[in-house]
Amino acid sequence: MKVEVGIIMGSSSDLSVMNEAAEVLKVLGVSYEISIVSAHRTPDLMAEYAKSALNRGLKVIIAGAGGAAHLPGMVAAMTPLPVIGVPVKSSNSIDGWDSVLSILQMPGGVPVATVALDGAKNAGILAAQVIATSNPSIMANIQAYKEGLKVKVDKMNEELK
Amino acid sequence: MKVEVGIIMGSSSDLSVMNEAAEVLKVLGVSYEISIVSAHRTPDLMAEYAKSALNRGLKVIIAGAGGAAHLPGMVAAMTPLPVIGVPVKSSNSIDGWDSVLSILQMPGGVPVATVALDGAKNAGILAAQVIATSNPSIMANIQAYKEGLKVKVDKMNEELK
Amino acid sequence: MKVEVGIIMGSSSDLSVMNEAAEVLKVLGVSYEISIVSAHRTPDLMAEYAKSALNRGLKVIIAGAGGAAHLPGMVAAMTPLPVIGVPVKSSNSIDGWDSVLSILQMPGGVPVATVALDGAKNAGILAAQVIATSNPSIMANIQAYKEGLKVKVDKMNEELK
Amino acid sequence: MKVEVGIIMGSSSDLSVMNEAAEVLKVLGVSYEISIVSAHRTPDLMAEYAKSALNRGLKVIIAGAGGAAHLPGMVAAMTPLPVIGVPVKSSNSIDGWDSVLSILQMPGGVPVATVALDGAKNAGILAAQVIATSNPSIMANIQAYKEGLKVKVDKMNEELK
Amino acid sequence: MKVEVGIIMGSSSDLSVMNEAAEVLKVLGVSYEISIVSAHRTPDLMAEYAKSALNRGLKVIIAGAGGAAHLPGMVAAMTPLPVIGVPVKSSNSIDGWDSVLSILQMPGGVPVATVALDGAKNAGILAAQVIATSNPSIMANIQAYKEGLKVKVDKMNEELK
Amino acid sequence: MKVEVGIIMGSSSDLSVMNEAAEVLKVLGVSYEISIVSAHRTPDLMAEYAKSALNRGLKVIIAGAGGAAHLPGMVAAMTPLPVIGVPVKSSNSIDGWDSVLSILQMPGGVPVATVALDGAKNAGILAAQVIATSNPSIMANIQAYKEGLKVKVDKMNEELK
Amino acid sequence: MKVEVGIIMGSSSDLSVMNEAAEVLKVLGVSYEISIVSAHRTPDLMAEYAKSALNRGLKVIIAGAGGAAHLPGMVAAMTPLPVIGVPVKSSNSIDGWDSVLSILQMPGGVPVATVALDGAKNAGILAAQVIATSNPSIMANIQAYKEGLKVKVDKMNEELK
Amino acid sequence: MKVEVGIIMGSSSDLSVMNEAAEVLKVLGVSYEISIVSAHRTPDLMAEYAKSALNRGLKVIIAGAGGAAHLPGMVAAMTPLPVIGVPVKSSNSIDGWDSVLSILQMPGGVPVATVALDGAKNAGILAAQVIATSNPSIMANIQAYKEGLKVKVDKMNEELK
Repeated sequence: MKVEVGIIMGSSSDLSVMNEAAEVLKVLGVSYEISIVSAHRTPDLMAEYAKSALNRGLKVIIAGAGGAAHLPGMVAAMTPLPVIGVPVKSSNSIDGWDSVLSILQMPGGVPVATVALDGAKNAGILAAQVIATSNPSIMANIQAYKEGLKVKVDKMNEELK
Repeated sequence: MKVEVGIIMGSSSDLSVMNEAAEVLKVLGVSYEISIVSAHRTPDLMAEYAKSALNRGLKVIIAGAGGAAHLPGMVAAMTPLPVIGVPVKSSNSIDGWDSVLSILQMPGGVPVATVALDGAKNAGILAAQVIATSNPSIMANIQAYKEGLKVKVDKMNEELK
Repeated sequence: MKVEVGIIMGSSSDLSVMNEAAEVLKVLGVSYEISIVSAHRTPDLMAEYAKSALNRGLKVIIAGAGGAAHLPGMVAAMTPLPVIGVPVKSSNSIDGWDSVLSILQMPGGVPVATVALDGAKNAGILAAQVIATSNPSIMANIQAYKEGLKVKVDKMNEELK
Repeated sequence: MKVEVGIIMGSSSDLSVMNEAAEVLKVLGVSYEISIVSAHRTPDLMAEYAKSALNRGLKVIIAGAGGAAHLPGMVAAMTPLPVIGVPVKSSNSIDGWDSVLSILQMPGGVPVATVALDGAKNAGILAAQVIATSNPSIMANIQAYKEGLKVKVDKMNEELK
Repeated sequence: MKVEVGIIMGSSSDLSVMNEAAEVLKVLGVSYEISIVSAHRTPDLMAEYAKSALNRGLKVIIAGAGGAAHLPGMVAAMTPLPVIGVPVKSSNSIDGWDSVLSILQMPGGVPVATVALDGAKNAGILAAQVIATSNPSIMANIQAYKEGLKVKVDKMNEELK
Repeated sequence: MKVEVGIIMGSSSDLSVMNEAAEVLKVLGVSYEISIVSAHRTPDLMAEYAKSALNRGLKVIIAGAGGAAHLPGMVAAMTPLPVIGVPVKSSNSIDGWDSVLSILQMPGGVPVATVALDGAKNAGILAAQVIATSNPSIMANIQAYKEGLKVKVDKMNEELK
Repeated sequence: MKVEVGIIMGSSSDLSVMNEAAEVLKVLGVSYEISIVSAHRTPDLMAEYAKSALNRGLKVIIAGAGGAAHLPGMVAAMTPLPVIGVPVKSSNSIDGWDSVLSILQMPGGVPVATVALDGAKNAGILAAQVIATSNPSIMANIQAYKEGLKVKVDKMNEELK
Repeated sequence: MKVEVGIIMGSSSDLSVMNEAAEVLKVLGVSYEISIVSAHRTPDLMAEYAKSALNRGLKVIIAGAGGAAHLPGMVAAMTPLPVIGVPVKSSNSIDGWDSVLSILQMPGGVPVATVALDGAKNAGILAAQVIATSNPSIMANIQAYKEGLKVKVDKMNEELK
């Protein structure tokens, strides 16, 4: 299966958070790859990754980073693909505010689709939703996934009684 | 041309901000529609809008709201389509923090692709990027748009000298 | 005894916080019911709950939620009953600010009576105070409860000496 | 008509904000009175007001204050009636955060039903909703008011087209 | 020795923080008393305490409280004595911001001398400094205390080498 | 009359705020002096001012500053007198938070009695309250001043009717 | 004179703020150049600028940006020279917090010397201080400049009297 | 080797954070000294340290402090050398915001080069970068250090596969 979603993060310390994106993509039937790409330590690798993404066949990039989190925005600057940013509450972060604001507050012209703090699972679902706009089979998987959310609440109510 | 992007907002007072999404979609060659749909004043209209969106042929929904901004998240709860949320710094907002947090911090399972405060232009570009993942002509428009951003900086440097 | 207060929350993970509302209602002699109703996972169940509440005889609804907490505001949009919102400091919350702001900052026309972060006990007391405006026996219970608060401080002073 | 809602505020400078509570109560058919009662300048007047409220026949108290806003919480400490607090963004406030937090974050045992910053209109609606729990005629007015909110959105959509 | 400083707090749960005020007053030779006085649970006791303080011979009141912390400001409203407020980071506090802002942001006319979050030791020193303005022996103790601070830094430097 | 209160500030741009301290001290019958003393531009002048204050007969120092406001804390480090800090919302301040936190959050051992943002009037009253602990005539002035606050509220209520 | 300091910014809209760096460098006798270099619109130009800076003879880079401000950190990633970051309170910023945090909170290994919000003047002085560590003539200019700061305070005190 | 960088901090409790500056300076071949110098407890020692630094041959000062952190700014006021400030998240800090703002927000004329919260390692690298502007051997060390950062990311990617 051709890889459609690229998951990148600034450090392997972000892996425990970012793996949730991979897991939900697997559930939704979307192919992905994972790499460590650091904006500040490997800027050339990042540029190469971003610039080659479209030609390599990727359709969406998910980028996670913490603190002064420049990876999602810089990748978005160098690819026409939609980029989803995951603010990670890393150990050097001020309660996550720095991660959130440095990913969310992109200037006009270069959007990053930002999800909640440590919200990698939602980044994965969002990537699948993008793929699903032209793939009815993935769309069906998403609809089934949403049905599953309801079932969980039903079970909670049964347990409550 | 079939409408592919639905732009909604809670009140016509958000229109001056949200029109920037429409304008950039026009530039990028993507069709759209605009409506007022309020989560708190017209919850049934909102449910109808969200639930019918996929069948009506929409591919992306852009939802803008201010204060306790529930529109993007509630629409995302009722459609499998990707939903882009625009936090609006409305007059009743606490410096925009309420709009940002009540759109961004969605629970696992129901993502909203959040852009910057009052970032409707970026919401439009992001919607076009989603469409472009299966539409090479829109992808070309986005690439041209990004080239245009560089040209503006070149001009600024000429003016500086 | 007819149920007068409905306690709802987005997930059973909120139960440890929200149970404090139930406990104080029991102390004050007010009948209640508890259910899991999620704005984002079960929007139809939520609409049904909110729209039927008045006819089912409920007088007050207490709704607790964390993160981008839309449950209290959306229920308030669909019932004429007073809705009390409890911001829950859930694990995915940014120190509780998201929960507080997305419940408190409702637009003009659709109020939510918001209590402190994790303040479910106060939500219960407030619900009883609403009931008590037309029920002298509950009003007497509240007055006795307030006397009890004074007695606790007296005991603290005795222990101090 | 017997006065059912008492509207108080710390200073006549809060009047422009707090009048919105009075106006919506008038629309909803609920009787009210307005007074200046300052927690910090007239603590005895405040105690007298709060302690006599129940016997004077009041059913709800709406209290607005800015900065270190102690009026709503202190009144709640001295009456068994439900107290609705309106954080006012006064000139000496730090962007309203002080008003919001010093009204919202009441300790367990003494609730204040807090509404949005400068949300006096919603305080009025909430007071009417409390009255309406035992007054079907006011309940009908609230239901009509909510219908009116929908009509406004319909008009906005017509104007948009 | 006549008691010159009254230390009060809203709950015995604040005692571990507030005891630091007592300890430093002992070191500086200033007499004090400690009581539990709650603004919200014992408003009458608070009024009595504040109004009788001057006649009982107190010269300074130190008041500690957390969350929506009204005790320092309300006591200041009812006594002409200087009141020192200690924001306590209690369990129900939003990272201490509520305690700080509801003590610090008093309106013009009614000051509270606020110290750092959980800064009860500094409240004790400040009370002693107030007493010392008319008591040369306490002033000498404060000067000696400040010399002691320097000695500690000298020791740290010796240990470093 | 011997000068008892020294009012200092980092720049003459703080004068419009800090003059309120002078005005209320005049009303309360307390003598004062005003100087510009900058922690960052005139550190030696600051040290000289702080170290000589006790011997010059000052009893209280009021220090106002904005941004990274070091003046109150540094003066407190070099005098045994009580120091009152006024956070000024200067033009280079981030909404006043920097001024507030850099004055309030002093380490254990070196207190600054902090008042509200731009709260110079309260700094003046607080200084008078300190003087009044050993001066019955000033104490009487403060009591009269507090009576005046009540009268203003009475007038507001008359105007309201 | 060889250019020693490069001043860059993301947009000509930052020029009014960033010019203060240029002006103070002129006063201190340090040569500089100014260019528009955008991280998000001209990432290749930015990489070229950063990577060539050392060889072109620059000794310090001053980079100003607003919102999700990635320019200073990305330049720091691609040059061994010291980079000074100026958070600009641009129109699309959330009160400047996004600019501050996305410049300040760089991960270990890649520092940015951050100055105050809109603090371009201080960025210029800091750049001169860096140059001065190996240039006694610039060091003398800085010492004279600091003397000038004292003189301004002296004048303020004269005007006060 | 002559000492070129002075590392100071307000208390030995900051040593575990500040040692990271020393360690990276060792790696980069820059000589340093460490001392405890407290702005609030040893203001005279601080003045002496700052004023003698240039003549003692220091080229850069790194100052770390927490809470109302005045050490970096006050040292900057008394030396023409570049001063790097490290905000320390000490136990008495409000989540680090006080440390950050009281170091970062220096007034025009007196810069402090601020690094991230607890970012002492970056302070060390920045100090080395300043030294390197006139020392090619240190510049080479910094370039090698930056290469090492890339190698670490390469290793992470290998481990990932």
